[in-house]
Amino acid sequence: MKVRVDVMLKTGVLDPQGEAVRHALGNLGFEGVEKVRQGKVIELDVAEGTSEAQIKDMCEKLLANTVIENYAIQVL
Amino acid sequence: MKVRVDVMLKTGVLDPQGEAVRHALGNLGFEGVEKVRQGKVIELDVAEGTSEAQIKDMCEKLLANTVIENYAIQVL
Repeated sequence: MKVRVDVMLKTGVLDPQGEAVRHALGNLGFEGVEKVRQGKVIELDVAEGTSEAQIKDMCEKLLANTVIENYAIQVL
Repeated sequence: MKVRVDVMLKTGVLDPQGEAVRHALGNLGFEGVEKVRQGKVIELDVAEGTSEAQIKDMCEKLLANTVIENYAIQVL
């Protein structure tokens, strides 16, 4: 079973990495890039029958820092 | 206009970060996690009318290392 977890910084949390990308795009001549946020994707191959609650538990305990990050689980 | 770019390591390219996550999940007692791949998501706010070709150009030039990474563009 394939599961995809997206982890993004919460709104309002500064994202220096995204800001660096925005700046670099501007330097490369790409205009009109107003905002960039960078996050991570984690693709997991888990055993059939793994519950969404278990995946959520993985996110809370390891994959995301829930103080500053939101996560979204998607079963593929 | 919101655009989302997913950047993942190509199949066959070693992913030590994903491997570390897999290992850590095992140590936390989560069983049945067979494989983990980690990539990044970049969310861009670009000016209306930015063409997909321009976004592709951004990926090729900055967002992805096309030697080892694949990217996928999604206009939201």
